[in-house]
Amino acid sequence: MLRTQYQIRSGAYYDSITLMQLQKALVALPGVADAGVMMATPANCELLAAAGFDLATIAARPDDLLILVKAESDKAAADALAQVDSLLQQRQKTTTQGFRPRSLTGAVDQLASAEWVLISIPGRFAAGVAAEALDLGRHVFLFSDHVTLDEEIGLKRKARAKGLLVMGPDCGTAIINGVGLGFANRVRRGNIGLVAASGTGLQAAVTEIHQLGGGISQAIGLGGRDLKSEVGGITALQALDWLARDEATAVILLISKPPAADVAARLLRAAQGCGKPVVCNFIGYPPPARRLGNLTFASGLSDAAALAVGLGQSQPPPRATPGRPLSGYVRGLFSGGTLAYEMLVGLEPVLAPLYSNLEAATTRKLADLTTSQAHTLLDLGDDAFTQGRLHPMMDNELRLRRLAREMADPAVDLLLLDVVLGEGAQPDPATELAPVLVQATQAGKRVVAIVIGTEEDPQGLSAQRERLSAAGAVVFASVSDALGYLYGLLPPVAYDHPPVSFATGELAAINVGLESFYDSIVAQKGTAVHVAWRPPAGGDERFIGILARLKQQQAAVSREKR
Amino acid sequence: MLRTQYQIRSGAYYDSITLMQLQKALVALPGVADAGVMMATPANCELLAAAGFDLATIAARPDDLLILVKAESDKAAADALAQVDSLLQQRQKTTTQGFRPRSLTGAVDQLASAEWVLISIPGRFAAGVAAEALDLGRHVFLFSDHVTLDEEIGLKRKARAKGLLVMGPDCGTAIINGVGLGFANRVRRGNIGLVAASGTGLQAAVTEIHQLGGGISQAIGLGGRDLKSEVGGITALQALDWLARDEATAVILLISKPPAADVAARLLRAAQGCGKPVVCNFIGYPPPARRLGNLTFASGLSDAAALAVGLGQSQPPPRATPGRPLSGYVRGLFSGGTLAYEMLVGLEPVLAPLYSNLEAATTRKLADLTTSQAHTLLDLGDDAFTQGRLHPMMDNELRLRRLAREMADPAVDLLLLDVVLGEGAQPDPATELAPVLVQATQAGKRVVAIVIGTEEDPQGLSAQRERLSAAGAVVFASVSDALGYLYGLLPPVAYDHPPVSFATGELAAINVGLESFYDSIVAQKGTAVHVAWRPPAGGDERFIGILARLKQQQAAVSREKR
Repeated sequence: MLRTQYQIRSGAYYDSITLMQLQKALVALPGVADAGVMMATPANCELLAAAGFDLATIAARPDDLLILVKAESDKAAADALAQVDSLLQQRQKTTTQGFRPRSLTGAVDQLASAEWVLISIPGRFAAGVAAEALDLGRHVFLFSDHVTLDEEIGLKRKARAKGLLVMGPDCGTAIINGVGLGFANRVRRGNIGLVAASGTGLQAAVTEIHQLGGGISQAIGLGGRDLKSEVGGITALQALDWLARDEATAVILLISKPPAADVAARLLRAAQGCGKPVVCNFIGYPPPARRLGNLTFASGLSDAAALAVGLGQSQPPPRATPGRPLSGYVRGLFSGGTLAYEMLVGLEPVLAPLYSNLEAATTRKLADLTTSQAHTLLDLGDDAFTQGRLHPMMDNELRLRRLAREMADPAVDLLLLDVVLGEGAQPDPATELAPVLVQATQAGKRVVAIVIGTEEDPQGLSAQRERLSAAGAVVFASVSDALGYLYGLLPPVAYDHPPVSFATGELAAINVGLESFYDSIVAQKGTAVHVAWRPPAGGDERFIGILARLKQQQAAVSREKR
Repeated sequence: MLRTQYQIRSGAYYDSITLMQLQKALVALPGVADAGVMMATPANCELLAAAGFDLATIAARPDDLLILVKAESDKAAADALAQVDSLLQQRQKTTTQGFRPRSLTGAVDQLASAEWVLISIPGRFAAGVAAEALDLGRHVFLFSDHVTLDEEIGLKRKARAKGLLVMGPDCGTAIINGVGLGFANRVRRGNIGLVAASGTGLQAAVTEIHQLGGGISQAIGLGGRDLKSEVGGITALQALDWLARDEATAVILLISKPPAADVAARLLRAAQGCGKPVVCNFIGYPPPARRLGNLTFASGLSDAAALAVGLGQSQPPPRATPGRPLSGYVRGLFSGGTLAYEMLVGLEPVLAPLYSNLEAATTRKLADLTTSQAHTLLDLGDDAFTQGRLHPMMDNELRLRRLAREMADPAVDLLLLDVVLGEGAQPDPATELAPVLVQATQAGKRVVAIVIGTEEDPQGLSAQRERLSAAGAVVFASVSDALGYLYGLLPPVAYDHPPVSFATGELAAINVGLESFYDSIVAQKGTAVHVAWRPPAGGDERFIGILARLKQQQAAVSREKR
């Protein structure tokens, strides 16, 4: 027959790791069968009851620490409880800090050089502390989860307006100035900068980079929701802008699960314009190509790490002089269905709205095939077009007529064609197309032609390319090369918010929450101050509500006085 | 005022390219404004009427050739029509063949060595001719479109049972024994074999391979529907099996738009077991990884070509000895959400049914999170699991308990874990996990562990890896490496149909349909016979129906007689 004994410690606040360690230590004591160590919030009391502890006779308040021990005898239980103080002290001894401020303001006074505030307190208190940190001009690493989406949006907008970063909420990891925050691996410093909406994804990538001999300049976490439409990638875009300016960063690695389409578009365009090689690993997202200008698309974390290390070790290729930015719509008229589809998969992340007679992820179905809308890519080999006529690879007539219509549209900037050579294809497509292309360029349209073929083909590759170039077309040998050129024409995305800045020397940080994060910064030769944070009103939700209302009233009163 | 004149030529059948060329030649004559040249089928008459020709007074039958000329004067129109014979003869002169058989049987008599029949006649007649070719023991290249899905399935099953290939319908291109069929580029012969459900995709890939110095052994087209569930990749699996046995093929390249999930699974498993490096480019499909054993996943056609050439030039890596094939379910218990997600994206194409608490393309939602079903991958860091407890990266308790439950399930073969080291993570996860892993291996379960970390991490990478290995786990450094191992455990897919065979010397083929395909084979030094095919009953659909019913009756009668 097991005996249960308990202790209540009023007004004692410990973080959840400390409590877990105490619980494990108690269970390991002789004669102890089970132990429960939790702040006595209603939610925690339910969990303890579910774990088989009888709390019926225990009167603990939410801000009390409740320690329960189930043991073989009353004596064993009592002996275990008697050791709680020394077990807690063992934990305390491992920390080095002397005086502990009780507030953020106190911590800032104590370590004015701290540009970073780590927050890992329970989620319902976290947004308030994060806002306070921003008000004090500090960047925030927000480890806490259970912060609402609205709170996240509010915090990130506030931060952006001040040139400050909010990593998170639910940001598991980051590496700033060589010091890992939260969950973090110890890795070499180097020239690869990371932006990651994924905690273990970031960890896996940095460890692989380390194993491959590469190193990390900064690794900036975003939290899992930053790339949702609602948040709009605020932190990602800030981080990208910062890394683009950072002299220590030669290569940028972006990691996330598939972002929202609109955010992916903004992010890719920002990455495309950042002037450094960027490796993108959007896990589970069909890559638009392997390489498009300065962008390389990875297939998985290992691949991403290897690509980043390779790029970090090689000279960056000279930047191609980009053409005049797109000022109108793209109209693609393809004879090859797969070429059209590959172009669609490549353009759909960055061109919107994009219409087609082919189906792909975010592409819209063209309602009337005879009339293009916005950006349009057509597979002219589609049954709807070939009824009663030869395939456009054999007969260009349909395409020539459609080209004439597209070039008459003042909203069109660029015409996109494929020209497939070889046996079976028309004998001289370039000569057929040339007069129309000349007209198009004279009408101020640009023409991009993808020519598929070999010198040995009946039409001769060079001859066809030269004829098309002479007619004003920019000629490429593959969809991928043409896509690279088109990405280069995307209007640059200016980052028009205050730029983020922070010193890249030794890390100094303020820690609010899990004490082990303080220990870890110190162990990594960073400087830190741990705030002896306690939940307001002892964590009692009812009192917190009353306090919040009082604060609002005071604020209202002081507004009226002004 | 334009004047229209016309000619009707009864019983004259020409293919659509010949007619297009005649039409273009007529339009180019002096004084001619427009011309229409078509077999006078009801559909074609509608098209001519839509193009502005008045057919009201013209009485042409479906098997008549109708030639219309609109010119500036009656004389110009008459002069143009007077040249039709010489224009058609110019075309005829370019062909070299003497006697032309009128039937497939006749062609087979004339060129017995022909193993291939090219069919490019109108779709409604194509399936019948294809079936006849199969009955004569010939492989079929079916260029025609408008062949029904049911006809395709019937033809392909019939072919498979005989060890014959049906490429198509709507197969635009192939390269057999160095000779391009249909639309085809002239490229170097070499050691790369292609299987492609995409015509211009195949053309783009082979031309890029050629430009990069590589060459093609065989390029087998499938038609756009082969990888649909209904067809089940019959031709793709035949082609893969053939290329796996072909001595001239060192690397295989698979190209298609995203296949149906079940077909992708079969194809990947067949590719995985084929013993040669295989490059997969499923355009617009999220790649499960960059490299998994002998499989490499490309991002786009250019990337695919470059990978194939690279693999074709390098020594194939020694084949890893695969473990005992999977004989039960995989249960993955992950602490890292992104690691779980990457594993899910990787396993989803080949393991079914696959359940998870994460959402991905074909993965099913686990109804009850406490009970795994079939193959299950869980992100234990999910809110549903962490309510009131620490994240599994800090506290393994939940995972240890779940492991015990999974190993008690006799349907389970393999347990899959991640172990994330570093600051903030538990101090010695391997030691915590080891006893359970020992029990698991003693219970006959296999354990795969992905350990993310560095030597510099507080836990020490090697020490953790060694402890996990000693407890019986197979340890990997990344999801991608673990995926490669798991792919190696997939039960091999036996190809249990009659193997396809054909001679790889000089190509000999029979051509039914577009005459230009005959010319093109001859121009490429192949041997060919062109069949002077004519639509049955002169193409009159009513008579064709009657003929078909008569044939059925005769067949029924002869069955009764037997």
